[in-house]
Parts: sequence; structure tokens; C-alpha cells
Amino acid sequence: MTSETPWLSAQEEHLWRGWTRLNAELTARLQRAMQADAQLSGSDYEVLVHLTDSPEGRVRVSDLASLLQWERSRVSHHLTRMERRGLVERSECVEDGRGAFIGVTKAGRAAIERAAPGHVAAVRRLVIDALDAEDVAALSTVFDRMLARLDEVADTKVASTA
Amino acid sequence: MTSETPWLSAQEEHLWRGWTRLNAELTARLQRAMQADAQLSGSDYEVLVHLTDSPEGRVRVSDLASLLQWERSRVSHHLTRMERRGLVERSECVEDGRGAFIGVTKAGRAAIERAAPGHVAAVRRLVIDALDAEDVAALSTVFDRMLARLDEVADTKVASTA
Repeated sequence: MTSETPWLSAQEEHLWRGWTRLNAELTARLQRAMQADAQLSGSDYEVLVHLTDSPEGRVRVSDLASLLQWERSRVSHHLTRMERRGLVERSECVEDGRGAFIGVTKAGRAAIERAAPGHVAAVRRLVIDALDAEDVAALSTVFDRMLARLDEVADTKVASTA
Repeated sequence: MTSETPWLSAQEEHLWRGWTRLNAELTARLQRAMQADAQLSGSDYEVLVHLTDSPEGRVRVSDLASLLQWERSRVSHHLTRMERRGLVERSECVEDGRGAFIGVTKAGRAAIERAAPGHVAAVRRLVIDALDAEDVAALSTVFDRMLARLDEVADTKVASTA
């Protein structure tokens, strides 16, 4: 940190607080809807999305931790609970010593397929129904530009405080 | 779920995927910046924000779980780790049997104060610098409207799939 850090203007702070509150609200409501509809927590769903996205339906635990951006202990505790419920299964990887895989089970695949229609319906109710076509276009433009900028700028560069 | 669930249009799906990817990227980068600057994880920071927001610097563990919208086991594991690092402390509440309090320690308060300037600088670099004044105004308008709508509509109503 340098002492010259510019604080946010009132408008900027209003936007950022609104943004974070909206994300927290949307995340919480989408997760509650999914729990009620399909008995999956938001964390369960995130894990299952990453496993079913991989062609073999399994990824290394260490890679999953990076994908989820969770702390390692949280990954480990959560996978243990999901394994007890039969949604995922661990397999050791003897050949290369690079650590265990975690894979989606048949029950895990069924669970995420059962969750999908309800999740889409909740996204529509909570997000899309609040926007008109112009809003959708305007938000897409801004978000795409922000994503392109994040992809361009190396993480260390953007995250650095030098 | 009814069979009439309308799926998202290509534009709507593009927006929602961009939105969730942007949020995940921003969250991860802001958390890495905070870890590097102030040795606090995103989870640590969220807990400390809620504790320092309360007038007495402590809240019931059960209330904290609601504020964070985390699963109970995650709250419990995480508080144990923060307690070991001296950032928070538990106190039993003997008089009413409604469960333990968790409070911020002097070290916890110092940690979040140390983190604040770097966090604001990272928000500026990653978010605000990507936007012009018109974007800030336009996003604020949409987010405020969405938040007002969420506040209006009861959770059960919005989350219901009936």
C-alpha cells in the first residue's frame, strides 16, 4: 500500500456496495431455491458443475481447489460430506503421485440434472425478469469489456499494489 | 418444476454467464490481493466485516451463519481456524441458552483496518478503472432497481417454483 491510494467517490462507493449486496442476495436466493428444489447446496452445485464439465467426470482435488477458488481445508471438508451422500467418489492416482482424483457418481450426475431446470427458472425470476432488453444488452457490453480487460491484464499486475 | 419453464434466450444466457464469470473472477482476484497485502482470506474478511459492523463487536454464531449465508459446518470450521490465529474469540452466553457469541479481538480489528486501504485500491484497479462515469451511473440504476425489487418480493415468493 502506498499512502496515495485514492478512495472511492460517493457514486463509485454507492455502485460497489450495491453490486456486492446484489451479488450476495442473488447468490443466497438462488442457493435457497436450489436447496428447496433439488436438495443441493450452492457449494454442492459448484463442485458438481466442475466435475460434470470435465470430459471424464473427474478432476484432481488440487485442480478442483483452483477451479473453485476455495481454501484447501474447505474443499477437503466439503468433499468428505458429499462423498458420504454418494454424490462424488475419490480415486487414488497411483501412477504419478500427483494426488487423488474426485469424480462425479451416477447419483451426483442425476442430482445436478434434476437441479438445472429449477435453477434456470430461478435465474429468470430473480435476474432476467427484472431487466428489459436494453438492460440486458447494456449490462452484457459492460461485463464483456470488464472480462476482456481482466483476461488481458496479468493477475499479478492487476492485483499488485506496487 | 413445471414443464413450462422457459429457458433463457441466447442473449440472456450470454449475460448471465458473463455476470457469474465476472463475479467469480473479481471475487478471486480481490481475495488474492487481500491475502497478499494483509494475510486475510476472503472468508476471514467477510467474518471480520460482520463482527466489526456490530456495535459490540460480537454476534451470535447462529446469527453470523445467517449473515454469511454459509453452511453451519463451514462457519464452525472457519471460526475455529480464526480463533487459533487470535482474530476472533468465542464467549458462551450462560443467561439465555441461545448459543455462543463470537467476537472480534484487538488483533482482528487491527487486521481488518490494515486490509481496508489495499482492498479499496484493488476495487479501483479491477472495477472502477474499467468504467467511465456513464457506466457507473447506468450500472447503479440497474442494480438499485434490482435490489429494490428483491427487497419488495418476499423470498418465498421469488424463490418459489410453484
